[in-house]
Amino acid sequence: MSRHPLTVALIQRAVTDAPARNLDACIEQIHKAAEAGARLAVLEELHNTPYFCQREDPARFDLAEPVPGPTTERLSSVAKALGIVIVGSVFERRAPGLYHNTAVVLDTDGRLAGRYRKMHIPDDPGYHEKFYFAPGDLGFRPVDTTVGRLGVLVCWDQWFPEAARLMALAGADLLIYPTAIGWDSLDDAAERGRQFDAWRTVQRGHAIANSLPLLACNRVGVEREDDGTIAFWGGSFACGPQGEMLGEAPTDQDALLTVHIDLDRAEQVRRIWPFFRDRRTDAYANLMTRYLDGGKT
Amino acid sequence: MSRHPLTVALIQRAVTDAPARNLDACIEQIHKAAEAGARLAVLEELHNTPYFCQREDPARFDLAEPVPGPTTERLSSVAKALGIVIVGSVFERRAPGLYHNTAVVLDTDGRLAGRYRKMHIPDDPGYHEKFYFAPGDLGFRPVDTTVGRLGVLVCWDQWFPEAARLMALAGADLLIYPTAIGWDSLDDAAERGRQFDAWRTVQRGHAIANSLPLLACNRVGVEREDDGTIAFWGGSFACGPQGEMLGEAPTDQDALLTVHIDLDRAEQVRRIWPFFRDRRTDAYANLMTRYLDGGKT
Repeated sequence: MSRHPLTVALIQRAVTDAPARNLDACIEQIHKAAEAGARLAVLEELHNTPYFCQREDPARFDLAEPVPGPTTERLSSVAKALGIVIVGSVFERRAPGLYHNTAVVLDTDGRLAGRYRKMHIPDDPGYHEKFYFAPGDLGFRPVDTTVGRLGVLVCWDQWFPEAARLMALAGADLLIYPTAIGWDSLDDAAERGRQFDAWRTVQRGHAIANSLPLLACNRVGVEREDDGTIAFWGGSFACGPQGEMLGEAPTDQDALLTVHIDLDRAEQVRRIWPFFRDRRTDAYANLMTRYLDGGKT
Repeated sequence: MSRHPLTVALIQRAVTDAPARNLDACIEQIHKAAEAGARLAVLEELHNTPYFCQREDPARFDLAEPVPGPTTERLSSVAKALGIVIVGSVFERRAPGLYHNTAVVLDTDGRLAGRYRKMHIPDDPGYHEKFYFAPGDLGFRPVDTTVGRLGVLVCWDQWFPEAARLMALAGADLLIYPTAIGWDSLDDAAERGRQFDAWRTVQRGHAIANSLPLLACNRVGVEREDDGTIAFWGGSFACGPQGEMLGEAPTDQDALLTVHIDLDRAEQVRRIWPFFRDRRTDAYANLMTRYLDGGKT
């Protein structure tokens, strides 16, 4: 099978207050992506709405919807009409009082090929996700599609090498992160620079450690609430299996970033750097502990 | 206890064919490091000899020595005389026919504070380490010293996020990699660039994922054997807990790189990015598998 090269599109957007308008705008961009030859389109985290987790407000659970549901149905029809794979992000209402931050994957036939419920849930000033989202319970399972096996993770997962590794061990061809991360207005320029660079570097590190290409699609734009302001830093990017940058979006405006990915290169890289041969699976048991108190192992 | 800031020195050297002269030269640099205020000096991997693993030759096991042994005894007396912590690297002869690639840590009182036997063993053209070294059997245990708890790993380990994470979970204050990596003369400039950048990026990624400063001390210089040539790429560096570069050595010459590390900053970084709080230790069991055949999880 020759799947290659694969053209992918990352759709980076500043959202408005109107959910329907946001999804319309995403779909418009997916059309442009398809016209540009993309066979995979990735949307940012929670693309339908402002980043509501800036504040804890029970009324905001009204923004949630089931999966499958209105958003996956619309994305499904777009995927089918355009023959494109879409990775979207939904505030999933699973049951009354049980909600998830869920990535969804629509295949070219319109089928909901799979979903990933965010496993690592942050909770920091401005990012009150532990209030809104139950931790995922589906584990780290990539989703098979016509363009390959997609290792879809979400935002905060991007800081955890375990998540990327587990997707790679399950045969992912590509790591994909819809995300929503930005700067706190209280941080100075040096700290902002370190944060942005760290965010990019740790993900490039996952690409390298697993010899896999990686896509990160981030939100952009300034969102204000009473308690603070987040300047989402955009900077969506794609890198190859040695972490080499293949394309990146600006930090301050909407972007449709189109990149060509050679999915076959991963195996070539793994032949010169055969990390998977040498993992010490006999010596990793402590990874399942929270912390080794006193440093005893 | 205020341990901070800590001045560290990375001693990057091109070796000669004479083991005694190499160790002499390392010790000379440790003296200079101490004069510059360093309280921790890190040597490169297998600093006493040329990188003998370029070829498989049973006679080369003669280069091995016990630990404790001649090298640790000399480094011990230097550590004590200068009141400096030293991380060295020894081709350890443990028993007839049983050898390890071992990092050693000498504390300021001259004590052999601990050793780390390289856990991940490479084997690639030019790096026939599986012939020379039995895989380490001491696990990922940091070493307590007067300057902090040191997470000492070796070379190939630097590509494995598991190794860095396990050291962090055991309370390491600092990740340290003596290493010997270089370019194959057959690779073109673009590939060399990707490899060097990947090497640096994946390690910076470990620093970020664990919010720990990191030191990598690499060999430099061209070493020729009948079967090929390795141009060790130097580039020793130190980065902080957000992966921010604190200092780096050139790729083509000896260097004594002195850097100031604020060991207290790690906790500040962990307060804004509390990864250790959110690890999904309940969902990591598959990290102990070689591969999930068929992607089943």
